[in-house]
Amino acid sequence: MGEQKEEFVVTPYEVRGRIDYERLRIQFGTQELTSELLARIRSIAGSELPPGLARGIYYSHRDLGQLLDLYEKGTPFFLYSGRGPSGPLHVSHLVSFELCRWIQEKFRVPMYIQITDDEKFWARGLSREETVRWGLENLYDILSVGFDPERTHVFFDSRSIAALYPLAIRIAQKIPYSTVKAVFGFPPSTNIGLVFYTALQTAPSFYPSWAEGRSIPCLIPCGIDQDPHFRVTRDIAEGLGYPKPALLHSRMVPGLLGEGAMSTTGHRDDNVLFLNDPIPVVRRKIRHAFTGGRSTVEEQRREGATPEICSIWALWRTRFAETDEEFRTLTENCRSGALLCGDCKSALLPKIEAFYERQRAARESVRDWAESRIITTPPRPL
Amino acid sequence: MGEQKEEFVVTPYEVRGRIDYERLRIQFGTQELTSELLARIRSIAGSELPPGLARGIYYSHRDLGQLLDLYEKGTPFFLYSGRGPSGPLHVSHLVSFELCRWIQEKFRVPMYIQITDDEKFWARGLSREETVRWGLENLYDILSVGFDPERTHVFFDSRSIAALYPLAIRIAQKIPYSTVKAVFGFPPSTNIGLVFYTALQTAPSFYPSWAEGRSIPCLIPCGIDQDPHFRVTRDIAEGLGYPKPALLHSRMVPGLLGEGAMSTTGHRDDNVLFLNDPIPVVRRKIRHAFTGGRSTVEEQRREGATPEICSIWALWRTRFAETDEEFRTLTENCRSGALLCGDCKSALLPKIEAFYERQRAARESVRDWAESRIITTPPRPL
Repeated sequence: MGEQKEEFVVTPYEVRGRIDYERLRIQFGTQELTSELLARIRSIAGSELPPGLARGIYYSHRDLGQLLDLYEKGTPFFLYSGRGPSGPLHVSHLVSFELCRWIQEKFRVPMYIQITDDEKFWARGLSREETVRWGLENLYDILSVGFDPERTHVFFDSRSIAALYPLAIRIAQKIPYSTVKAVFGFPPSTNIGLVFYTALQTAPSFYPSWAEGRSIPCLIPCGIDQDPHFRVTRDIAEGLGYPKPALLHSRMVPGLLGEGAMSTTGHRDDNVLFLNDPIPVVRRKIRHAFTGGRSTVEEQRREGATPEICSIWALWRTRFAETDEEFRTLTENCRSGALLCGDCKSALLPKIEAFYERQRAARESVRDWAESRIITTPPRPL
Repeated sequence: MGEQKEEFVVTPYEVRGRIDYERLRIQFGTQELTSELLARIRSIAGSELPPGLARGIYYSHRDLGQLLDLYEKGTPFFLYSGRGPSGPLHVSHLVSFELCRWIQEKFRVPMYIQITDDEKFWARGLSREETVRWGLENLYDILSVGFDPERTHVFFDSRSIAALYPLAIRIAQKIPYSTVKAVFGFPPSTNIGLVFYTALQTAPSFYPSWAEGRSIPCLIPCGIDQDPHFRVTRDIAEGLGYPKPALLHSRMVPGLLGEGAMSTTGHRDDNVLFLNDPIPVVRRKIRHAFTGGRSTVEEQRREGATPEICSIWALWRTRFAETDEEFRTLTENCRSGALLCGDCKSALLPKIEAFYERQRAARESVRDWAESRIITTPPRPL
């Protein structure tokens, strides 16, 4: 992509334009996920890195080094990630949960998942029935990546409020309206639920420390667009006596139409591979997807294509290339012109179909226990 | 008080100056509590009116006529009142609960009491431990006025949040930040808990309708200073499919130092008779209290005193004059100069002492069942 200086916008509520991730990292003031840090993770895990880490999807962090220091000295952390249930998940949503699952397994740490059915009601025009229904559907999909039930805990906001609220009360008191206005750019017409919401989104970061009455570090893998949310969390942590959560930031999986992120915010369904898309729809979306190819076959054979702007290459990168070696070869063949976009899509399709099949089976297998993991009572009264 | 045009301020967070209640009622756009309405209440209740209604403490309302129409046609209402637990109750706080108790008994309707331990944490510099402790103490004092346990329900915000939240989610979505900013005058530094709080304060007004899935009217007796809170509630009621709550507004009991209302907001303890004041402290406060008397005995004998500005007269009015006849005579003797302030205070003291004694005994008798009335689970999931 070189030195393009196109305009782009990245906030928790909007991702637009061709994102210069390095510029964004510097803008946000986060740290680079260096090869040294990756080597440390590999060494502690005693395992090869998963695609999210090995292939540069995760590229930025806050305080990951300190988190690993503490871990090596015997203070384990916990993972926290979440989902705003505004509709079906798309394949890009599973990227952070797949990383979490890997970390949970290798580091033997608890995972906390927050389903924000209240927030999506406040932020979108959905009914309460819809946000709750999608909340449960999304939860099944998230758990289907293979989390260990014993080490996995769920906050389903409207059902977990009794557990979250005592902590959220103390958090809310530390956050002035002016902060959320500045961070999220809320206009005066923003409803008071959404204004309050940051307190609830912050609560899981501190929950285990509060519950156990000792300092338990938190690691939050998330899209870099979500960093502003957790900057607020980090700013108030010390005042409440809890450790600042560490963050691990990913690039966004680009949309199939070549847009900034695989997202439905613009209601362009063809930009997104939904986990509940029927296979024929998946095929059509892939066939129509934007690539980094040239206008003609001849030109592409001669000049090669540009993987970095290609929505199909981004999918190979997440998990569909089964090995890093396969991903490297594919990338080289794309860049050299040896691989044409049509052939690349044809090779990807059976992998995606197999993934959909596995995912749907896994999803059925979690239904039995999913709701039993929802936390409903507070660990202490205050 | 005639036509004095002194400045006064009345908001949910501040009461200052000598209040012209009639001007305030017109400013707020509420209706006059006429003698016709009072006669209707007396007739439906089949009983003489309690001091709050008979002696003009309650003087304004919204939609009380419609509420009585519905009641007479067989649709009973429920009562809702609350308390922000920032410290011990004072004797003026019991005025609205005494009225509620009377209405509960005569109209055989349920009473909902909200204890806002979250709000007081957000609005004041108190710790969570303090707001919860005061919440329970205040609840005992409130219940001590004689509510029927079978018909009395309590929302203790931090403990009742699971019950209130599903409804509060839908309420919050209807209230833009700009509304609470305009109504309460919140500066940008206001914490996001207090911004959200109106949603929780609104929830009890709709709770029985939500719980039972049919329209149940609500009556809220409150100080006129609290009207702005419930104007927001009334504005959003229809959009949520619930009836607008009716309101019954009281004058504020003036402070012992002659200030706008018996309140501790200025941290002037001598302005207030706390229910936990030891009797010698009560005596001292009464002895030092501001009255409507003249500078000399001679002048008072000649010109008479001014009951309307007198903090002692206001106490007789609430409940310490045992009959309306006694109250009328006292007022006449005050105005004529027959009754001197020292004698009036001496006559009041044994009544107050007896009240404190009764109240303390009653308070002990509610401890057994008070917490059992706290609602902790929602009537329905959404």
